[in-house]
Amino acid sequence: MLESLIAQIEKPTLLLDKQRAVRNIDRMAAKASRNGVVLRPHFKTHQSAEIGEWFRDRRVDAITVSSVDMAEYFVDNGWGDVTIAFPANPRQSWRLNKLAGRAQIGVLVESEAIVQLLNDELSEKVRVWLKIDAGYHRTGMPWDDFNSIERTALAVIHSDHLLLKGILTHAGHTYHSGSAEDIEEIYLQVLDRMKQVRHHLDLRDIKVSISVGDTPGCSIVEDLGEVDEIRPGNFVFFDLSQLVFGSCRVEDIAVAVACPVVSIHPDRNQIIIYGGAIHLSKELLPGTKGKDVFGKVVLAGPEGWTTIDEGNEIISLSQEHGIVQATDGLIGRTKVGDILLVLPVHSCLTANLLGHYLTLDGQFIEMARY
Amino acid sequence: MLESLIAQIEKPTLLLDKQRAVRNIDRMAAKASRNGVVLRPHFKTHQSAEIGEWFRDRRVDAITVSSVDMAEYFVDNGWGDVTIAFPANPRQSWRLNKLAGRAQIGVLVESEAIVQLLNDELSEKVRVWLKIDAGYHRTGMPWDDFNSIERTALAVIHSDHLLLKGILTHAGHTYHSGSAEDIEEIYLQVLDRMKQVRHHLDLRDIKVSISVGDTPGCSIVEDLGEVDEIRPGNFVFFDLSQLVFGSCRVEDIAVAVACPVVSIHPDRNQIIIYGGAIHLSKELLPGTKGKDVFGKVVLAGPEGWTTIDEGNEIISLSQEHGIVQATDGLIGRTKVGDILLVLPVHSCLTANLLGHYLTLDGQFIEMARY
Repeated sequence: MLESLIAQIEKPTLLLDKQRAVRNIDRMAAKASRNGVVLRPHFKTHQSAEIGEWFRDRRVDAITVSSVDMAEYFVDNGWGDVTIAFPANPRQSWRLNKLAGRAQIGVLVESEAIVQLLNDELSEKVRVWLKIDAGYHRTGMPWDDFNSIERTALAVIHSDHLLLKGILTHAGHTYHSGSAEDIEEIYLQVLDRMKQVRHHLDLRDIKVSISVGDTPGCSIVEDLGEVDEIRPGNFVFFDLSQLVFGSCRVEDIAVAVACPVVSIHPDRNQIIIYGGAIHLSKELLPGTKGKDVFGKVVLAGPEGWTTIDEGNEIISLSQEHGIVQATDGLIGRTKVGDILLVLPVHSCLTANLLGHYLTLDGQFIEMARY
Repeated sequence: MLESLIAQIEKPTLLLDKQRAVRNIDRMAAKASRNGVVLRPHFKTHQSAEIGEWFRDRRVDAITVSSVDMAEYFVDNGWGDVTIAFPANPRQSWRLNKLAGRAQIGVLVESEAIVQLLNDELSEKVRVWLKIDAGYHRTGMPWDDFNSIERTALAVIHSDHLLLKGILTHAGHTYHSGSAEDIEEIYLQVLDRMKQVRHHLDLRDIKVSISVGDTPGCSIVEDLGEVDEIRPGNFVFFDLSQLVFGSCRVEDIAVAVACPVVSIHPDRNQIIIYGGAIHLSKELLPGTKGKDVFGKVVLAGPEGWTTIDEGNEIISLSQEHGIVQATDGLIGRTKVGDILLVLPVHSCLTANLLGHYLTLDGQFIEMARY
């Protein structure tokens, strides 16, 4: 079955194992349900209305996106409750306003000034999450700057068009941690900080929900604690980075890039594939041999890919070429014109570059790109 | 004028200074002409029919591309002489054949086996370049493996559908060299090796042209020597990498990404821009402070960008966010909602991600993406 699919492939193609993706969704939905929290998955990973339906079939009705364009795309496709998890961009207020007339839209704010600015420019009601920096240090008000948080909350409450929904954080520093234990520790620390923020606001009679959620934390931690919603995204596909973090097993990785072999150099144990930086992205992992790794070759079984073909790693990417440092075994059984299956380092970026999916049962799935 | 353009920008947008791009084309065309060599520019950098016309206006009529898709796009747009500078991909022979019925198409081969395979699958005439590895070690027959080169040349000569055009190399190792002197040295070494290959084939009465050409080499070297054609691509835009190599001056860089400022954190001297990995690509340069650099802020003058705003560098990219490590000066004069102009590390990848151009005189230019 995989064989007949591969027979049709001419150029780098993003294969999607729907069974795995659905299993990943089911697992996260079940965890959210066990914990009594809302799953508001981040759709920036797949950017596809059709894949969105797989979530809807599992009773997900609230989603997260990372841009106004993406929000428009999913509202066009019937989603009525969308958080744009990106600092409100004043240059797109007019589009935000249009969108807010069509669906429940949430935005992030991190200062009184932005609250003022949004309120001045909006005529529709928009939900607001206060963006809290609980340790990642990318955006947000520091979790322990209770004064700023409170002032911003009050500015929202006193505005005409903004509705205070809650406090939100992204613990992106789990992506830089060394182990599952570290990730669990970060999750617990972030949760504790968010609860302190909520407690402080509670004392002032300001009621807020708590929204957290990165894929490593939400995948590894079993007891999600007193949060109201989680927003993981990458878990639908996973990838090599998540495998390294311990967020998933190799058999959970639901996407692989099928790359034609165009050249073989046994003298230096290298296979050149049609599959480069414009297909895989230049996201990298530090390799074991001091070389960066841009993807790993995975073995193909009759029904899909199975385990990593150890020792066969992409060590360099040009615009269209990838260089696979290969074992004698792989070199010996590969010829020009074959297809290698490659697990990407970061599936969100790879999907964004490849622009569509081919499922293992031969279905072509479109996605949006901006 | 730049100001009124910037006023319209809502989201990460690739600005193109047409005057600079045209000057870059003029300069390379003049160098090719002075040296009596054909300029066959690589169009993978811009991937745009409209920008292609700027070359055509300067009497360029032969081009290079890096995929069959790109060849189809440019043939559709009236280009009649196209080299696909990528190892021939047997899975696309049928499309190659269709294309060869519509234009003069050149392909690269690097073994007798591929020559055989192509010849079996083609019915139209296709031009062939023998891909030579003159030191880069990505693809090609080693330049000093005269036997393989000669056998492959003879296989082409004795085939039914393939026409031997010449020997071709890409000195991609200039991209890993330290200085303009190193690049010049690599160019001369590569040229010497290609001439040895030609001499050897000449002794067997096999006549070949020589095609070379990477942007660093073709930009830095004045006397291109006894080559027949050059194939630089990136020079139309240049970028931060080329600036580091010494291939261009900052005032030659013809593209910059306009990124809205969405958050400012003076406490850690950081500005967060709407402009992430899906806009700039994760191509990086090693930074001076041990941090990777994914782009640099450039100052804006009335007519376009001018010099690098030293000390203001993108040090981290998420999918949509970029973190600019900023000087007190930039922090002091920047507010949320402003636009920062960012020079990309690798303009080819950035253009491919952004998907279109906005010229400084407000013209929207489409490009193809695959």
